[in-house]
Amino acid sequence: MDNNMLFREAEETDVDEVVKMLANDPLGKTRENYIHPLPDQYLKAFEAIRSDPNNELIVAVWENQIIGVLQITFTPYITHQGGWRATIEGVRTSEYVRGKGVGTNMITWAIERAKTRNCHLVQLTTDKTRKDALRFYEKLGFQATHEGLKLKL
Amino acid sequence: MDNNMLFREAEETDVDEVVKMLANDPLGKTRENYIHPLPDQYLKAFEAIRSDPNNELIVAVWENQIIGVLQITFTPYITHQGGWRATIEGVRTSEYVRGKGVGTNMITWAIERAKTRNCHLVQLTTDKTRKDALRFYEKLGFQATHEGLKLKL
Repeated sequence: MDNNMLFREAEETDVDEVVKMLANDPLGKTRENYIHPLPDQYLKAFEAIRSDPNNELIVAVWENQIIGVLQITFTPYITHQGGWRATIEGVRTSEYVRGKGVGTNMITWAIERAKTRNCHLVQLTTDKTRKDALRFYEKLGFQATHEGLKLKL
Repeated sequence: MDNNMLFREAEETDVDEVVKMLANDPLGKTRENYIHPLPDQYLKAFEAIRSDPNNELIVAVWENQIIGVLQITFTPYITHQGGWRATIEGVRTSEYVRGKGVGTNMITWAIERAKTRNCHLVQLTTDKTRKDALRFYEKLGFQATHEGLKLKL
């Protein structure tokens, strides 16, 4: 499977499949709205991401099917001697391919992408209720050195 | 003090003072490089932030002195029904004004700024060794629902 997986930036025609994947998730199902026609705000967000050189919505494709998605944001920070960071968010894999290493391939790909963008750090947060996710990222070398705080507006 | 505090985007002439503040911190002193002339990468990062409409380096000014700094990044996400988020990073206050509510004013200001940018969420991570910071953010309404993971490249 590894050899035939392809990563590319999402196109507008992929957004439906991406939202379907986001909604098919214990947390996602409570906050996404996968209906047809797809709510306009998804396409607006897609357009904002696509037009921003520091944001990339990446899909993993296998046999012409989208089997995974993640978003990478590249941010110039004044801290760490003006270092750029890559933030990974919204990582999901299709339920049909779970346990086949797709997530590992996706994060490994994202780390390499961060290197090509000269980032000194890759960061992400994961909901504390996702115990498997924490172990997954730690196995890939991430360290849970920080608390991730959120404030809903 | 509250009434006379002013918030504005940093200018190039502020960068020296900002880096001085970042370096005068238990964690910052191990990773910043506050020397003269200031390493070029700080100015490059400043320029990248200033030219990006989704990044703002904000300074708090009181009696013509910079007494605080933080960076806000606005990110369009496909998750949460295509919602924008504000990420706060690199929050520091001058040692001369600690305990005077400057940090609270800064975060409160940043939350309002996030609202004007139509964000549905404000997020940040804080190093687990900064116990006071966690309590500070929780008092302001943030919830530590996530693990914050980092991978150095």
